[in-house]
Amino acid sequence: MDLKINLPEGEMPRQWYNALPDLPTPLAPPLDPQTKQPVSPEQLEAIFPKAVIEQELSTERWLPIPEPVRDIYRLYRPTPLVRAKRLEEALGVKCKIFYKNESVSPAGSHKPNTAIPQAYYNKLEGVRRISTETGAGQWGTALSFACSMFGMACTVYMVKVSYNQKPYRRILINAYGGEIFASPSENTKTGRAVLASDPDCSGSLGLAISEAVEDAATHADTKYALGSVLNHVLHHQTIIGLEVEKQLAAIGEKPDYLVGCVGGGSNFAGLVLPFLPRKLSGEAIRFIAVEPKACPTLTRGQFRYDYGDVAQLTPLLKMHTLGHAFMPAPIHAGGLRYHGGAPIVCNLANEGLIDATAYFQTECFDAARLFLRTEGFLPAPETSHAIKGAIETAKKAKPGENVVFLYSGHGLLDLASYDAFLQGKLTDFAYPEAHIAEALKACPDVG
Amino acid sequence: MDLKINLPEGEMPRQWYNALPDLPTPLAPPLDPQTKQPVSPEQLEAIFPKAVIEQELSTERWLPIPEPVRDIYRLYRPTPLVRAKRLEEALGVKCKIFYKNESVSPAGSHKPNTAIPQAYYNKLEGVRRISTETGAGQWGTALSFACSMFGMACTVYMVKVSYNQKPYRRILINAYGGEIFASPSENTKTGRAVLASDPDCSGSLGLAISEAVEDAATHADTKYALGSVLNHVLHHQTIIGLEVEKQLAAIGEKPDYLVGCVGGGSNFAGLVLPFLPRKLSGEAIRFIAVEPKACPTLTRGQFRYDYGDVAQLTPLLKMHTLGHAFMPAPIHAGGLRYHGGAPIVCNLANEGLIDATAYFQTECFDAARLFLRTEGFLPAPETSHAIKGAIETAKKAKPGENVVFLYSGHGLLDLASYDAFLQGKLTDFAYPEAHIAEALKACPDVG
Repeated sequence: MDLKINLPEGEMPRQWYNALPDLPTPLAPPLDPQTKQPVSPEQLEAIFPKAVIEQELSTERWLPIPEPVRDIYRLYRPTPLVRAKRLEEALGVKCKIFYKNESVSPAGSHKPNTAIPQAYYNKLEGVRRISTETGAGQWGTALSFACSMFGMACTVYMVKVSYNQKPYRRILINAYGGEIFASPSENTKTGRAVLASDPDCSGSLGLAISEAVEDAATHADTKYALGSVLNHVLHHQTIIGLEVEKQLAAIGEKPDYLVGCVGGGSNFAGLVLPFLPRKLSGEAIRFIAVEPKACPTLTRGQFRYDYGDVAQLTPLLKMHTLGHAFMPAPIHAGGLRYHGGAPIVCNLANEGLIDATAYFQTECFDAARLFLRTEGFLPAPETSHAIKGAIETAKKAKPGENVVFLYSGHGLLDLASYDAFLQGKLTDFAYPEAHIAEALKACPDVG
Repeated sequence: MDLKINLPEGEMPRQWYNALPDLPTPLAPPLDPQTKQPVSPEQLEAIFPKAVIEQELSTERWLPIPEPVRDIYRLYRPTPLVRAKRLEEALGVKCKIFYKNESVSPAGSHKPNTAIPQAYYNKLEGVRRISTETGAGQWGTALSFACSMFGMACTVYMVKVSYNQKPYRRILINAYGGEIFASPSENTKTGRAVLASDPDCSGSLGLAISEAVEDAATHADTKYALGSVLNHVLHHQTIIGLEVEKQLAAIGEKPDYLVGCVGGGSNFAGLVLPFLPRKLSGEAIRFIAVEPKACPTLTRGQFRYDYGDVAQLTPLLKMHTLGHAFMPAPIHAGGLRYHGGAPIVCNLANEGLIDATAYFQTECFDAARLFLRTEGFLPAPETSHAIKGAIETAKKAKPGENVVFLYSGHGLLDLASYDAFLQGKLTDFAYPEAHIAEALKACPDVG
């Protein structure tokens, strides 16, 4: 059997899957942060294109993938599903382990799967420029790549501490033609106000979001794009799981366990959601979400309405949350440091349809090193969580079962974190119950 | 038509091609640097395993690829041949452009194609550790990857200036379990002698070679490995062109132009050599070698015997050379800064079977940026030369002709060079005739 299962491009899915109509319990609507009433589509039009808002609210099970989006997808899709045979042998397990390799995209992660359609829909509606924020840098890279494919401008607000720590991310975004500002920046009213009171402010994701949204809201030719959490982002990512389904079918197999890391939740959702109908129809298939103990949203958070950002500017979303003011420890998996999660993922976790588990970063880097020395490739720190989850799952799986995990990105621009790991300088973080209880007190008192 | 032509793993070549028996003029033998007599196989046994020496001298046209080597190849091979349709459209050309993507290997370049068999043959003969040198870092990464696959130790001597400039390369080599020394190091007699007289010496590739060879020659459990130039390295790389041949055949096409960059010459040779018999039988197929104007070995060097290193320790090889003391300007394509070239490639160039051309680094980075913004992927600075050559070739090609170039590696660990390019800080280098004539005077007076 081939180690790599490649789909022909003609087999690349022509529709994204929308889990909304299949959720056992309907999704709670996003609420206006002021009025606490459901947000209207019109309210979103200041920052998002209409086609994206329609997808956000759509209850159609299948959403067609536009041909120009498929054209760009074809630069790297379908991505390979790979049998991790050497990893199986090193573990001595009798199940099969597969990984879906999204690191082969130009940006090196799954993020282009949604960056490309978002750029496309904006382009269709005459938008000239897209603004966004980025923390670890994966999303900013993906959006600047996508904008360059459609000849659009892209402005990225990157949290200042990351901007300074990760110069390669900045250069790559520039190379795609994107402009990038360390946030807080002089480019927005919000940024200038922060800098006036604290010139040395090192920034935060919440602040970068505020700058990017302000930039979009104050320029007629500019819209804003988000890289995770929202429904439309998850829809776009389902192309991952839809391909996995076809790839396993091509070798006469079905998944028993689907494993992914969870920050905002989009890569995990992209892998598992297409298998939701099977699971609901009684098929024995487990969805395993892996998060860091330093940011244990699904494993220790509460399922309730909360703000998406520290500054309380975003709509209220019903999700698992650690409180919007929760400040996760500075682990290297920057993409997993989010206090909340995608409402669709949290809804399913609340129904008991998703099993969540949490690990320390050191044990995840240990798993990444084992992967590197058996399969050869260097995983992103975020992806190392999925690998750890897959290894623990495989150890318990029965002979002949299939464990499929999502290899969400490579770690070639995260080598500094490996240096810290190899030198034994990583710190593991977990929180006492009282710390989390205190953080949760900041949640608004809604439903 | 699919953009990506993927071969099934079962179609991966089972033999490497050896061009030696097909060369119109026999290859001149390597000479002992002291006696100027042909080197005997026994002389090489101090630093190379027997199986490698046999391949170096073999006149068999086909060399079987051992099954354990194929097993590791399968982690990333067969690599895709990709139609660069968006690049064609941006150029407005009517020919087809394809690129063979070797950047998908774990080490990010074509180098593992020879690192894997070299590690394997050493392992078979009981070698515990392999030493080598690395300049830009691609080869050191590939060999440490290959050694980790076979559970072997690997020691890399990295030119000190690169070691300090490229910390990510060092970390990646460490992550694979390789040990790495900035050269000159305290680890060898050679290194200590240099440091004693010049503690701030920033090193050179020649010096690093001397350290790696000394390390192998003075430890019974250790051999040395070279990443380019020698015949066996070129043989191993022919898997590239053999796959291209099958991939084009699968879509009913043949190459009209094969384009690759040339430093030592192994990636270029890997692409073109399998097509040598066709060319010799009269098929109209052009082999286009692209080098930097800052190191114009094939375009401005002399075809004669010269040392492979500055220190005059290696055997004399008959090749195009700029003189072994030629110090190429510090362009960013570090892998192309070599005064000589592979004897097989130079032999063919001397016969007029290879067309060599040279470009400035700025025009190559311009080409790389166009590739990035059309095809999405970030090329290594070395690879940018192949892209520039392919673009110029495509502009002159007839409608319907096929231009195939070798995408030898990605640039994700070379982003500092893109920063210099984007900021307009690149310098272009070329040499007056007198400078080259002077450098050539150092060549020994042999044949």
